[in-house]
Amino acid sequence: MSKHFLRQFFELESSTYTYLLADLTTKEALIIDPVVNTVERDAKIIQQLGLQLRYALNTHIHADHITGSGKLKTLFPGCQSIISNVSGAKADIYIKDGDLIKIGESGKTPIILECRSTPGHTNGCTCFIWHDYGAIFTGDTLLIRGCGRTDFQQGNADQLYTSIHTKIFTLPEYYKVYPAHDYTGQTCSTILEEKKYNPRLTKLREEFIDIMTNLKLCYPKQIDKAVPANLLCGLQNDIE
Amino acid sequence: MSKHFLRQFFELESSTYTYLLADLTTKEALIIDPVVNTVERDAKIIQQLGLQLRYALNTHIHADHITGSGKLKTLFPGCQSIISNVSGAKADIYIKDGDLIKIGESGKTPIILECRSTPGHTNGCTCFIWHDYGAIFTGDTLLIRGCGRTDFQQGNADQLYTSIHTKIFTLPEYYKVYPAHDYTGQTCSTILEEKKYNPRLTKLREEFIDIMTNLKLCYPKQIDKAVPANLLCGLQNDIE
Ligand SMILES: [Fe+2]
Ligand SMILES: [Fe+2]
Repeated sequence: MSKHFLRQFFELESSTYTYLLADLTTKEALIIDPVVNTVERDAKIIQQLGLQLRYALNTHIHADHITGSGKLKTLFPGCQSIISNVSGAKADIYIKDGDLIKIGESGKTPIILECRSTPGHTNGCTCFIWHDYGAIFTGDTLLIRGCGRTDFQQGNADQLYTSIHTKIFTLPEYYKVYPAHDYTGQTCSTILEEKKYNPRLTKLREEFIDIMTNLKLCYPKQIDKAVPANLLCGLQNDIE
Repeated sequence: MSKHFLRQFFELESSTYTYLLADLTTKEALIIDPVVNTVERDAKIIQQLGLQLRYALNTHIHADHITGSGKLKTLFPGCQSIISNVSGAKADIYIKDGDLIKIGESGKTPIILECRSTPGHTNGCTCFIWHDYGAIFTGDTLLIRGCGRTDFQQGNADQLYTSIHTKIFTLPEYYKVYPAHDYTGQTCSTILEEKKYNPRLTKLREEFIDIMTNLKLCYPKQIDKAVPANLLCGLQNDIE
């Protein structure tokens, strides 16, 4: 029976993964990349499990859905939103590379997440590393056998390549990789698998940049609504 | 770093969860409830991880998708299909209540699954319990905050109620519950949560039977194609 709790959720419209982490000693919890559409589902489970939600973390300003941070803050008054200090978004707490986010400090089994700045998909992208568990929450920086696009929101393929190779692939190979999205029904990967089999990141830098420049993806349907809302952490009045 | 490997996959069309389990000492693996549509994805990962697939388990004869067992057997010649002896389906190995399925016996970290017969959704429904990991794969018998329907395929609400209460809810409360489906983006539950919060199973038997009798669900779209195929474990010629 593990003392630490990790629950993965999926939002079907934007194919987003949300993660709920809890320290079962103190019952303190945090959530990574909640989606406004599924906040009620997540809130119900948080309540049923008797957890106290302290933080709503965003790996970056999402362009494909509105964050659930704002709505969670109204449902759980003690909850504070967190995002990178260079993201340009408003939040209760701004983090930078190397910062630690902690819950359960008053008990014997605290959860500590290391914030690692990984610009490239957006300039404020941050990965959260849970060393005790052996896992990294990669946001859109590294996806399972893929990676986030680099053609808007300060995207930069050269920078993304550096971030993944120097900040993610240097982790122990058994660490689990939990991304913010998957479109193929995969839920998890490992550093080893992505180093060996990611079809983009196994390429040389120049080839990677070339691939990213020629993806020819559509303009994201939700971006004009999602980005302004997410700059306010979903706290404008018309989020419903 | 865990010696045991569990990977959850999702098939988007039928909202089915498939589970890949492996013993990393011997590299032996088994898969629970593979779907024919996603066999290629699963096979690629099995190959990338260097695993030897020994068994393809089916919790029951699914009515909403065609099992991937047949196709997996052609891709991995050593793989044997497994289903309950009372299901009426063909398979390489027939199991009954209390049987143990083992992989990795030649190494020091074998995986042992206990087969537990749980009729009610279908008469051949079987749950697989991984005691070392603290998990049960419930098929359609118990879903997250729900359960399988009982209005076709020898379904019997009275029997389902007995199966869940005597065969599943008697497990330790911290055991994880991994179902064959979820339609709300939830990936996992626990025995404790389902005992406390499952809206159907927390009812008295008579009320449960009443709920199940009045669900007024549609006839499953795929049933006339899926059930005959699954009776042959997906081994007829026109599965593509
Ligand atoms: Fe993004
Ligand atoms: Fe079923």
